[in-house]
Amino acid sequence: MILARHSGRLVLIGFGSAGRAALPLILRHIAVDPARVIVITADGQGAEAARNYGVAVSVNKVTRANHRDLLLPLLAAGDLLINLGRNVSSAALVALCREAGALYLDTAIESWPQDDCNAPPSPAQRTSQALRDSLSSVVTGSGSPTALIEHGANPGLVSHFVKEGLSALAADIMDRHARLDGPADWAALAKDLDVRVIHITERDTQAAAVARTRGEFVNTWSPEGLVEEACQPAELAWGTHEHTLPVDATHAGHADSVFLARPGAATLVRSWTPAGGPYLGFLMSHVESLTISDFYSVHEAGAVRWRPTVTFVYRPCDDALASIMELADGGWRGPRRTRLLLDDIVQGADELGVLLMGHARGAFWFGSHLSATVARTLAPSNNATTLQVAAGILGGLVWLLENTRAGLRLPDEIDHHRVLEIARPYLGDFRGVYSDWTPLVGRTRLFSERMDSGSPWQFGNFRLS
Amino acid sequence: MILARHSGRLVLIGFGSAGRAALPLILRHIAVDPARVIVITADGQGAEAARNYGVAVSVNKVTRANHRDLLLPLLAAGDLLINLGRNVSSAALVALCREAGALYLDTAIESWPQDDCNAPPSPAQRTSQALRDSLSSVVTGSGSPTALIEHGANPGLVSHFVKEGLSALAADIMDRHARLDGPADWAALAKDLDVRVIHITERDTQAAAVARTRGEFVNTWSPEGLVEEACQPAELAWGTHEHTLPVDATHAGHADSVFLARPGAATLVRSWTPAGGPYLGFLMSHVESLTISDFYSVHEAGAVRWRPTVTFVYRPCDDALASIMELADGGWRGPRRTRLLLDDIVQGADELGVLLMGHARGAFWFGSHLSATVARTLAPSNNATTLQVAAGILGGLVWLLENTRAGLRLPDEIDHHRVLEIARPYLGDFRGVYSDWTPLVGRTRLFSERMDSGSPWQFGNFRLS
Repeated sequence: MILARHSGRLVLIGFGSAGRAALPLILRHIAVDPARVIVITADGQGAEAARNYGVAVSVNKVTRANHRDLLLPLLAAGDLLINLGRNVSSAALVALCREAGALYLDTAIESWPQDDCNAPPSPAQRTSQALRDSLSSVVTGSGSPTALIEHGANPGLVSHFVKEGLSALAADIMDRHARLDGPADWAALAKDLDVRVIHITERDTQAAAVARTRGEFVNTWSPEGLVEEACQPAELAWGTHEHTLPVDATHAGHADSVFLARPGAATLVRSWTPAGGPYLGFLMSHVESLTISDFYSVHEAGAVRWRPTVTFVYRPCDDALASIMELADGGWRGPRRTRLLLDDIVQGADELGVLLMGHARGAFWFGSHLSATVARTLAPSNNATTLQVAAGILGGLVWLLENTRAGLRLPDEIDHHRVLEIARPYLGDFRGVYSDWTPLVGRTRLFSERMDSGSPWQFGNFRLS
Repeated sequence: MILARHSGRLVLIGFGSAGRAALPLILRHIAVDPARVIVITADGQGAEAARNYGVAVSVNKVTRANHRDLLLPLLAAGDLLINLGRNVSSAALVALCREAGALYLDTAIESWPQDDCNAPPSPAQRTSQALRDSLSSVVTGSGSPTALIEHGANPGLVSHFVKEGLSALAADIMDRHARLDGPADWAALAKDLDVRVIHITERDTQAAAVARTRGEFVNTWSPEGLVEEACQPAELAWGTHEHTLPVDATHAGHADSVFLARPGAATLVRSWTPAGGPYLGFLMSHVESLTISDFYSVHEAGAVRWRPTVTFVYRPCDDALASIMELADGGWRGPRRTRLLLDDIVQGADELGVLLMGHARGAFWFGSHLSATVARTLAPSNNATTLQVAAGILGGLVWLLENTRAGLRLPDEIDHHRVLEIARPYLGDFRGVYSDWTPLVGRTRLFSERMDSGSPWQFGNFRLS
């Protein structure tokens, strides 16, 4: 079913797991001439698969040095650039698109590789806050061509899940049913509901019947991307209800962004999802933690008076878990080889949602439970994880083509109804669930533990290591 | 090849992974009438396999209530009892064997189940020190029938690896080649060499091409046994060179036994093996940590003047790693199902050895690297892990049958040359390797860390969580 039309050129940078997942959905739902679609892939991987869709393929690594020469000839006013490349600067490409009058979409804020310096970047330089700051130089007024940033699954769809969840809570707890529009309204609602903590919860149980070998980093989405994230400092948005900043925490630029002096993939946090129940996940640095907290901040007289703690709590699949442990063995160097789990997956699902906590009903989860089996019936070249990303790309793209002069936008700043209407058919079991779980549940059976029992939603209660 | 003869009855309690692994080796190398061998299995599992060896099978759960009635009729003077049963009290059976004049061997100090009380046992009650103390009531003089305790792989063979390692260090560092006998000589050697820290290192990379499903606890040896160990407090023997006791540490009875207020399987320690390099492993409670440290303690005027820190650092296979994480998710309750990896293993090895640290050459590893493939060619019903255990049982058994009036013995207190002579053909690649690894290596590339750089062998430098 055609959901939107695009008569210009469509340039897709990156043909890794996300690109391969998204292209068939784009061609299925966006009326675009395949001959005007060009896929730019750094290593030629997947070129054959791309050509099978009738699109043009260019094998080129987009770099700081060549990006203008490579891309400007391809982009005229009204053309569309989708940036799914690793280490391809979002800021540079947004600026380029603005220059060309072209539309832009990505699924994460990327920067040019930092490996040209001798010393590795400092922890502060490797935060999501730093990536976010890289966009601050980009000026795009609201009448300029739309650039939709960070619109995959997370970041991306999860912002819309938060709005759906808050709307359900407003109806259930406060009998409020009004449709909200402006950021201030949404922030006021979150504050009124007392949603002090928001977890982006992701729990991946997908597995293949192929044993991981030593030195192999295995994952259900870009293994290289996960390695990079795993080594970033643990990072979260620090809410106004928190009593005590961890001793190993540093404020990163903005007052609400905090990072710890350790890798996200060495930092465990307690969370909860409906299918899996309580779980331990990694406190990974993800830009949506920061942007969502910002969006729901209540300002008074120019100062933040209220904001939620927002954390991404990621439990990768078993193979990725073992891969991360091996990465930690080697002092976060490596890996020697990578493998993407895709067609060989035999079981499991990706449960991706948001857990809204602290309100009158305790905890409320809203999100998607998508099995690999179902994902495969919905779209080719996908597993559960990549299809959630592709659904976010598709939803964002349709909104973008319907709103072409909206300037720079984050997921929280666009119409969540429209995006979820588009994405929902690809999200499997999609629902909201209340829970009486708190991070204090089931803790002291075998060992006594120091907890703040009077304030269950304190970060110290969630954190394990 | 027949290595020893046993004319009496041989009673084998427990036919889990260790029992099934050991029986074919016993029948291959010990001249015993199969008709005089009886296997007692609690649940009938493996009964068919046992009968195929021509031995008798009795399906009976050995309990505190029935053990005398069940076992005394089977045991006359000179008979042999091998206890490989979970939750079958070593102390009770040693006493029973003494009463009957029978020989005894086990691979771990077991106790009757503690689940008959309402409250779960305290951390102190669940330490290896408590298990060890359970044996203190057993009086077996040196002229009484031999009872060889804790003689599998670890505890068991690793004690002999320590002696081999120390002997190599004595030759290489001090040009000493004298054969040592008494405990005091060995302890003096360890002190002279300044072996401050001993790790029992185990790194299991075995894997099957069968994906783990949710709720399933998978391991290469008794999954139930690992669950129990995983929930025990992290525990180690505390050496005299250590500066600072961890804030969460408690002395458990003996001055040298220390446990932490957290599960062993939630406590990560840095270690090193030759094939794998640096790794993170769990600080699991194992009785050999305590008994080895005791054996190498130097006493003066009735007091301990010197002793090494001894730690078991266990890296289970990928599937067990994910199983443990899931166990932690549920607050260390569960699991719903278990699965033993055996014939379905397609790759990997168990690297089991001892890492002797702090001496003039830094670190020296001595042990066994045995692949599952090689294990299978050496003995039926085995993987690498179970064959290392079975080799320990066989080695101990041959020594025991050659020394039938030695009373109660720990692995450190028997002839390591003879045991290793027997066990070695089943241990794969068996070697000693020097290393310049210390727990400070490769630490501060991405994040600054608090370390005691002047004293690399302090426990605080090894510990990660």
